[in-house]
Amino acid sequence: MKIGTVTGSVWATRKVQSLQGQTFLIVKTERDELVAADCVGAGAGDRVMVVFGTVARHFCDNAPVDAAVIAIVDTKKE
Amino acid sequence: MKIGTVTGSVWATRKVQSLQGQTFLIVKTERDELVAADCVGAGAGDRVMVVFGTVARHFCDNAPVDAAVIAIVDTKKE
Amino acid sequence: MKIGTVTGSVWATRKVQSLQGQTFLIVKTERDELVAADCVGAGAGDRVMVVFGTVARHFCDNAPVDAAVIAIVDTKKE
Amino acid sequence: MKIGTVTGSVWATRKVQSLQGQTFLIVKTERDELVAADCVGAGAGDRVMVVFGTVARHFCDNAPVDAAVIAIVDTKKE
Amino acid sequence: MKIGTVTGSVWATRKVQSLQGQTFLIVKTERDELVAADCVGAGAGDRVMVVFGTVARHFCDNAPVDAAVIAIVDTKKE
Repeated sequence: MKIGTVTGSVWATRKVQSLQGQTFLIVKTERDELVAADCVGAGAGDRVMVVFGTVARHFCDNAPVDAAVIAIVDTKKE
Repeated sequence: MKIGTVTGSVWATRKVQSLQGQTFLIVKTERDELVAADCVGAGAGDRVMVVFGTVARHFCDNAPVDAAVIAIVDTKKE
Repeated sequence: MKIGTVTGSVWATRKVQSLQGQTFLIVKTERDELVAADCVGAGAGDRVMVVFGTVARHFCDNAPVDAAVIAIVDTKKE
Repeated sequence: MKIGTVTGSVWATRKVQSLQGQTFLIVKTERDELVAADCVGAGAGDRVMVVFGTVARHFCDNAPVDAAVIAIVDTKKE
Repeated sequence: MKIGTVTGSVWATRKVQSLQGQTFLIVKTERDELVAADCVGAGAGDRVMVVFGTVARHFCDNAPVDAAVIAIVDTKKE
């Protein structure tokens, strides 16, 4: 998993059928900008945890995605 | 998923049988240039969302690909 | 697999149901910072080995994660 | 998928049984050097398309590989 | 697959049960340092080929690993 900050969401009218109704968040991690399906109701500014790969589908009613926001991070204890 | 811009397409006469009839787009993301199967009729200049890994096959009638263009992005709300 | 050092843990009250009870460690590798489920009782400062991808689930009672801490490294013999 | 140029091949006498008879090409992409099983009879100097992950096995009679050369690229239309 | 050089091995007394008896090698590739299960009896200084992802398990009696050393490279013909 990776931790990043939500910076916005993606708006797309032309997309494949199986993604209708899914919210896609833009997440900035330490080194990258990526898009992940939202599973916890996160919004811009939230620190979130993102999971990658086939396992991401388990969090989105099996929607065909490769990344999902699965937690809003309160603190990183160090 | 990643967001990138379509910069062109790939033309290949010698290729494996199972990829016949598939359109392959060249997509430039923030950090990389990659090739993805087209599932939404995107063209050069379009901002698109690309999905990676085994899940990409779901969008291409199960064709053996590892990346697929699944949406044309209108705007990134920030 | 990758070797890294545990720098802390993640605290998240709002998260998907299937991750309740799982400990998530922040691990700094040579080039990256990532989050992995703990399977060996590692703590801050430990040098650990992290496994990635679908295989990570095997170590966490099939919890939907994409990375798991599977060993505490004593020494790297060179 | 990625596009790269074949720079040579790998010669290995000591290898696991299930890879006997497979040709492995060295491919230089924009940012990386990797090894991929040959499925189209490519040679040094060819521009090729490489597929990654579990799907690569479909192109190599199910041989246990994680990357396969699946097309020789004529031109990238831009 | 990637080519790299074995620089040593990992010693870990506290590790998950299913990895007992497996040898883990540290491999330096062009850009990265990683750990892979040994399937060919490689040692420090050997140039090796490493396979990644779920397919790596096929080489290690289905042990839950994400990378495996599958060949010792004699030469890279260019």
